Order: sequence, then structure tokens, then C-alpha cells
Amino acid sequence: MLLQYLTELSKKIIVLASGSPRRKEILTNLGLVFQVVPSTFPENLDKSRFTPEQYVIENSRIKAEEVATSLKHAGQTFDVVIGADSVVVLDGDILEKPSSEQHAFDMLTRLSGRSNVVFSGVSLVLPNPDGGFCVTSFSERTEVEFAPLTPDLINAYIATREPLDKAGAYGIQGLGSSFVRGIKGCYFNVMGFPTHAFCTQLLALMPRLLPPSAPANTNGC
Amino acid sequence: MLLQYLTELSKKIIVLASGSPRRKEILTNLGLVFQVVPSTFPENLDKSRFTPEQYVIENSRIKAEEVATSLKHAGQTFDVVIGADSVVVLDGDILEKPSSEQHAFDMLTRLSGRSNVVFSGVSLVLPNPDGGFCVTSFSERTEVEFAPLTPDLINAYIATREPLDKAGAYGIQGLGSSFVRGIKGCYFNVMGFPTHAFCTQLLALMPRLLPPSAPANTNGC
Repeated sequence: MLLQYLTELSKKIIVLASGSPRRKEILTNLGLVFQVVPSTFPENLDKSRFTPEQYVIENSRIKAEEVATSLKHAGQTFDVVIGADSVVVLDGDILEKPSSEQHAFDMLTRLSGRSNVVFSGVSLVLPNPDGGFCVTSFSERTEVEFAPLTPDLINAYIATREPLDKAGAYGIQGLGSSFVRGIKGCYFNVMGFPTHAFCTQLLALMPRLLPPSAPANTNGC
Repeated sequence: MLLQYLTELSKKIIVLASGSPRRKEILTNLGLVFQVVPSTFPENLDKSRFTPEQYVIENSRIKAEEVATSLKHAGQTFDVVIGADSVVVLDGDILEKPSSEQHAFDMLTRLSGRSNVVFSGVSLVLPNPDGGFCVTSFSERTEVEFAPLTPDLINAYIATREPLDKAGAYGIQGLGSSFVRGIKGCYFNVMGFPTHAFCTQLLALMPRLLPPSAPANTNGC
């Protein structure tokens, strides 16, 4: 969706507020040129206060605003900061990265033979001339169907270390691809960044990012 | 699904009868060790004689058997040869790789704002002690929903050259990811190789590939 604008976008300062190698890979595959400034937000919100959609949006917003604020304080300009967060949801429970091998085993045992839902939230922070920010946030939902997993398979998977840094203890793009029967929705959302939804939202912001000739409307968002 | 068997499988001679870099990438991500011996079959079957499932299975079978036969004639042993074929189907028409930029433009114009279906066929050829082959074939189906594409976007996409060597004139894993709203089914099937279905089928062949101690049952398949 952004292909016609890639040359002009390459002149803009786009910042990804995430250290995730998968998000970096996805944005690179889209043809975008960007810097990586990982957020240091500890993701310690009280999950019970949010729906999964609200939770990932809130995390993505805090991450992007934190990086935008630190850039501003350092006197560094930017055109857009991108924050993102992803979780796996099963039976209403939000599953993030496992804290140990046993935790990963328990998560994968719960996910075995069932469908889970991956929610990603993305926030795009643009600077306002008044010194504030204009924030656009959205979320995306993808259903992931697992084949039944035996304890032997789960242990063999944990031994590869792949699940230990992934929300829900699996990576759909790696060895985990062998036990995912199928998905409903955006594949890249499961990897951690909803490609099509992001492009659609960035496209809607194009009049602000790439004003035709006169300066963009600067009255807030 | 194969994780517990990867060490033993690494001692087997597995041959991929396809030069596709995407299939090579998918099999590598599964942890398999294999050789690549591309088939030279010109894929010139009369499409009107087959359903899409039959067509991709037949192509995959011919490719795998051709490579297995040439290895046998060259006196080279193998444990399994993997053949694969993928097509995109819209309104009952089988779309393969575009023959020109105009052909790619026409295909993408047809796919715009609609759902297409990707079929992949895979054949696994194992040698029989009697000198013949044991062939297992299957197909997988994934639905892919496109966002509406403007002529400007289609032209910008063709200018990247990405669509020109892809069935249906799009690559879901690259720049094409920006205009795919979502899928129903196996993502890797759209990339050209149905990961989970392949693992399930190879698992079923494990008693032949990795017999416990005594020689495998050698009476045909």
C-alpha cells in the first residue's frame, strides 16, 4: 500500500520503538528505512484493568510516547515513532513471554490442540508543532490453530530455546510453524506486527507526513 | 512435529526437487538437513484435465519422481525426495507465474479486493528395495484476501520485480504482505510449501524412514 511513497518516506525520520528482531525484519521487508530506539517501558500494567485489545494498544502507546519524549528531550527530531506490543490470549488469559522453561511447558500444554488468539497493538506518534504529539493507535486480531502436542514434542521444542523469548511460548515463523495447522487473519500480526493494518494507517497519515506543497495542517492531530 | 527426530533425520539423505529459494528457506527453518536437486520438468500438463488439487499433486509427483529416477540412474542413493508445486486459483482459473509485466498487471487487477485460493501439492518419494518407488502425495488449500489495489500501486509493485517469478504475481512474504488483509489456513502454503501438513505426512512415514531396529517392512509402500 505504501509502495508509491517509499522514496519520499525514505527521507523521513521513522523510528521503531522496539528491539524485536522480528518487527525489524517485517518493517524492512516492507521497504521502509528506519532507526531502532527500543523502549525501556517494563510492561507492568495491571492486565485485569484491560481487554486484550486495550492492553496491547496501551503498551504500544506508552512505548512509542516514551521514545518520542526521550528523542525530544535529547533535541533529536523525528517524523514518526512506531510502538508495538503483542500477546497471546487463551480462555481470556493474556499470555506473554514465559518466565522459565516450566512456564513455557505449561503454556504450550494449554495451547495444544486448540485455537489461541494473537492481539497486536500499534501506535504511531507524530510530532505536533506546538511541542505535543499526535497519536494514532489500532489493534489487530488473528486466530491460530494448534495441532495436538505431545509432552515429548513440547520438551524437544523448549530444548531449542525458540519459545523462551516469545509471547505465548511459540514462534510461528520458526520451528513452531510445524505444529500450527492454520490461522485466520494476518500472519505478520502473529509474528508481532500487523503489516496490512499498519500500511493502511500510515497511508491515512500521509497528508501530514508528506504534505503536497504547503505545510500540513498543524492544528493538533 | 518432527523436532524429536531431527538428529536421526539429519543422517538420512533428503532431497528437495525444487530450486525455489522460498521452499529451501521453509525446510531449513524446520531444522531439516537436505540437498537441492531441482527438477527439470517443464510443467506443461493440460490444466483443463485436472482440478487445482489434482494439478499441483500431479506436478509435484512428476517433479519428485523425475529427480528420484535421475538419482537412481546416476547410482546415487537417497532416503526421500520431496517434490512440490503451488498455484493461485481465482474464479476456477489456475494462475501460475506471469509471463510478462502486462500479464502480472492483469493478474493483480483481477486479484484486487477479492479472495484467491492457493493450492500446494507435495509428493514424497521413498525408494523401495525392489527398485521401485513408494509415493505419498497430498495437497493443502489456503484462502488469501486482498485489499483493493489501485493501478498506481500495481505498477509500483511490478517495478520492484517481486511479482514476476511468483504464482499469481504476488509474494505474501515480501512487499506483497502490505496488501494482504488476511488468510485462512497455512501461511507457508501460500509461500509455496505447507509446513504442518508436510510434517504430519513425514511423521507418518517415520516407521519406514527410521525403523526401530529390524529392517523396515519392504513390501511396497
